Amino acid sequence: MQHVQTDMQACIDACLACYVTCHSMLMGHCVETGGEHVAPDHVRIMAACAEMCRASAHIMLTGSPLHRHSCRACAEICEACAKDCEGMAGMEDCVRACRHCAEECRKMAA
Amino acid sequence: MQHVQTDMQACIDACLACYVTCHSMLMGHCVETGGEHVAPDHVRIMAACAEMCRASAHIMLTGSPLHRHSCRACAEICEACAKDCEGMAGMEDCVRACRHCAEECRKMAA
Amino acid sequence: MQHVQTDMQACIDACLACYVTCHSMLMGHCVETGGEHVAPDHVRIMAACAEMCRASAHIMLTGSPLHRHSCRACAEICEACAKDCEGMAGMEDCVRACRHCAEECRKMAA
Amino acid sequence: MQHVQTDMQACIDACLACYVTCHSMLMGHCVETGGEHVAPDHVRIMAACAEMCRASAHIMLTGSPLHRHSCRACAEICEACAKDCEGMAGMEDCVRACRHCAEECRKMAA
Repeated sequence: MQHVQTDMQACIDACLACYVTCHSMLMGHCVETGGEHVAPDHVRIMAACAEMCRASAHIMLTGSPLHRHSCRACAEICEACAKDCEGMAGMEDCVRACRHCAEECRKMAA
Repeated sequence: MQHVQTDMQACIDACLACYVTCHSMLMGHCVETGGEHVAPDHVRIMAACAEMCRASAHIMLTGSPLHRHSCRACAEICEACAKDCEGMAGMEDCVRACRHCAEECRKMAA
Repeated sequence: MQHVQTDMQACIDACLACYVTCHSMLMGHCVETGGEHVAPDHVRIMAACAEMCRASAHIMLTGSPLHRHSCRACAEICEACAKDCEGMAGMEDCVRACRHCAEECRKMAA
Repeated sequence: MQHVQTDMQACIDACLACYVTCHSMLMGHCVETGGEHVAPDHVRIMAACAEMCRASAHIMLTGSPLHRHSCRACAEICEACAKDCEGMAGMEDCVRACRHCAEECRKMAA
């Protein structure tokens, strides 16, 4: 990832890590655990968060200053996903990835 | 697209149409025309806009109310892309698609 | 979508329609119905098919002849998704979209 | 990325690294260098490769065995992108990322 501005690298890394965590936990932990883990609202938030993180990283990687709009949206969606996952069994990694991504995105959106 | 709420359908359609227009014009008209059409800032805005529109449609299609954050970002990015393309030869379709998408997204973000 | 070669348009349309159908039915019908509709294998196939269709359309829209590789993969994945959905209640639209997309992609891969 | 099967992890990592390299070099090095770096065929191959790598990683992360189809397509497209970039000034990182991704994808497609 050496081809992008250094000051954005932490945010791109956080977005890609959060994308991988949300998407793989939804397709792994959540669908295998069932119950509240496949409740419509939970599945939708996880899928929305994975997509927004992926798009946020992609837009930063374009190098366009428009990334501040997508980073702002990503921060909001990650924060909502962290809140939704909090207290659900086995979702600690997701909460952590979302919180970290939200924090990095808020910096880039400022 | 009959599986999503009717009141969102116009916005999903506008986002997908704007994604297809930005992405295909960048890969077609812009790279074939060259000059200002492949200027770094123009390429980056077109690519960022295509990605945000694609993600915005995807997040609405999840059915999560979090779409209002991505729609807000999409409206801003589409508006910026329309402004950038305005006055460039042969970019009228892109300006139109971006303006329409921005308008629909602003409604969904409200 | 007037900016791409006419002979590809039917396939791009079929891929985007299949993406929208798989993704929105997974997030709508499947998560609301529960039971076999949220079985791990079913969710994974639907998500994989939605992504492959989206990527297949995107790669055709670049205008690169490399699309024949992605179209071949898309045809296989759509066919597998159609088989998985066949006989599941309320999945007729998905079966139809996948079969149609597989057929169009096979033509483009030839 | 601890939520997916260990034997796939190297391939997922290679796909995401190749996606980031192709996309960021196209938006950075290529559009800034101009000339042959923004020739239509080169831009299209880079964009197609970035998308296929991203989709390949995404489909592996679903956990569906259908990934072997997308990995096969990804191997072909990465190999073609490596060949296209070979001999172009400053594209060594891209050649390397594409070759490595093609190799990992071939293993997963077998």
